[in-house]
Amino acid sequence: MSVKLDSSDKIHQVLDDYDYFLFDCDGVLWLGDHLLPSVVETIQLLKSLNKQCIFVTNNSTKSRQDYLKKFAKLGIDGISKDEVFGSSYASAIYIDKILKLSKEKKIWILGEEGIEQELHELGYKTIGGTDKKLIEDGVKFSPDHELLSNLDEKVGCVIVGLTFNLNYLKLSLTMQYLLKDNKSLPFIATNIDSTFPSKGKLLIGAGSIIETVSFASGRQPDAVCGKPNQSMMNSIKADHESLQLNPKRGLMIGDRLNTDMKFGRDGGLDTLLVLTGIETEENVLKLNDGNAPTYYANKIGDLFEYHNK
Amino acid sequence: MSVKLDSSDKIHQVLDDYDYFLFDCDGVLWLGDHLLPSVVETIQLLKSLNKQCIFVTNNSTKSRQDYLKKFAKLGIDGISKDEVFGSSYASAIYIDKILKLSKEKKIWILGEEGIEQELHELGYKTIGGTDKKLIEDGVKFSPDHELLSNLDEKVGCVIVGLTFNLNYLKLSLTMQYLLKDNKSLPFIATNIDSTFPSKGKLLIGAGSIIETVSFASGRQPDAVCGKPNQSMMNSIKADHESLQLNPKRGLMIGDRLNTDMKFGRDGGLDTLLVLTGIETEENVLKLNDGNAPTYYANKIGDLFEYHNK
Repeated sequence: MSVKLDSSDKIHQVLDDYDYFLFDCDGVLWLGDHLLPSVVETIQLLKSLNKQCIFVTNNSTKSRQDYLKKFAKLGIDGISKDEVFGSSYASAIYIDKILKLSKEKKIWILGEEGIEQELHELGYKTIGGTDKKLIEDGVKFSPDHELLSNLDEKVGCVIVGLTFNLNYLKLSLTMQYLLKDNKSLPFIATNIDSTFPSKGKLLIGAGSIIETVSFASGRQPDAVCGKPNQSMMNSIKADHESLQLNPKRGLMIGDRLNTDMKFGRDGGLDTLLVLTGIETEENVLKLNDGNAPTYYANKIGDLFEYHNK
Repeated sequence: MSVKLDSSDKIHQVLDDYDYFLFDCDGVLWLGDHLLPSVVETIQLLKSLNKQCIFVTNNSTKSRQDYLKKFAKLGIDGISKDEVFGSSYASAIYIDKILKLSKEKKIWILGEEGIEQELHELGYKTIGGTDKKLIEDGVKFSPDHELLSNLDEKVGCVIVGLTFNLNYLKLSLTMQYLLKDNKSLPFIATNIDSTFPSKGKLLIGAGSIIETVSFASGRQPDAVCGKPNQSMMNSIKADHESLQLNPKRGLMIGDRLNTDMKFGRDGGLDTLLVLTGIETEENVLKLNDGNAPTYYANKIGDLFEYHNK
């Protein structure tokens, strides 16, 4: 059963037991543009104790650079790019290091600027994505659209993530690339979260968009790069050898059981669920040992608040 | 094993054996706006022999009235509204006769004008659908959109079908109605075809759009009204008592195994697969007896062409 972190003693024990603190961002540090209580102080505390803070997010609409801007804007100072792991970055790394896709090839994107930026940074050319023409032409769809009959022969990979600029033209073009060359182009999903929490509502998540083109093309993604997939964990461990050697010195903190907690557990880390996102205490207490997080807390800021009590 | 209709004798036998000829439209009579060979003559032949011709389509973007216009435009004369069964009509009938939804309630539509027209004809008010504001506002999505926080309390049912005017706002609004009132609003799918064949290409079908909102909301449709679901067959049989009494006097003609052929077989009719759509002769010959159509033919016009040889 999960231990609730609700006393000074428990918090001091946790601070003794772990060297690496991996944070999901949305629902843990902030909700949309609203910073949660005592977050800045908690990160300052951890850094003052020489703990490694690593930020792990499935939101592929932003690049690591965008995240640094967001941290700064919310007053969380001193975060560097190598402390941020996003699903757009993880996907770009996967395409480069695992698929070893030639830089001569282009990548078709159904997704936002975050994916484009991370791929461009590695030297890839992309099409689709935030192309304004696809947004304009998509307002009134025509089956005669020239791009449907003129696929770019240089495209060597398809990546799909969350996009707010979705339309029938983009979905159908994505489908053409998934069917192309006897369905042989690699199909990469940034993450498969079904929903996207925003302003107290659940909106359509990357996983639901991926379902559309999966069902239409009869293909499942060849790789899912975000949490709970371990490719992002392996990238983190590659950067932090002592976490690789001793994963039990790491604590994965998140608000979702099926992505964050699974991600930590599968990577051999201990886990802390915070109740500022989509899970409730009632549900946590019903979980069997195989699925229960190591700890849970009302909010991440409790680390700071109980520490100083 | 399926019998190939490739001789005058076989065609005369078929014309003797059946009184009801149920036709899928796209891929059988036409491809998009292109009429297939000898279709007009085949329908004239059947009508001259006092056969009942019934047109059964899963394309919910058009109403029955739209279909009459399309028949006339392509030179197929003398078709009346009661010979046409579309998934938009079937869905409207389902909401009225089976769900018995009050006319005081509104229906949220993710779909096109065909659904709106059929529902309006039965006296229902609809929202969503072809509303221009949702298209305009969807070009640049904002999570602050007023409609996301102001759901219409009068909505009593959600219907999803094919739409070419898809965007993130419409998908997210559909999701809000599917989650509303503890997921209790009836969720109706016009049809679940994964793809939509158009101009020699496969585009995104209604079924793939439904997958998005299904996965996002964690709900499956409460009813699927198009082929292969039998609610449309039951409507047809209700209009044609002798088909109900003796379904083996009916022949379902289509180009898809998983919708058209299944629809006919499940209704107790014999089946004819034509190769002008998405299936190949090679695949037909591989089918076991449980899945093989009764007959197959290169094209529907072969009925006329072999008859006159």
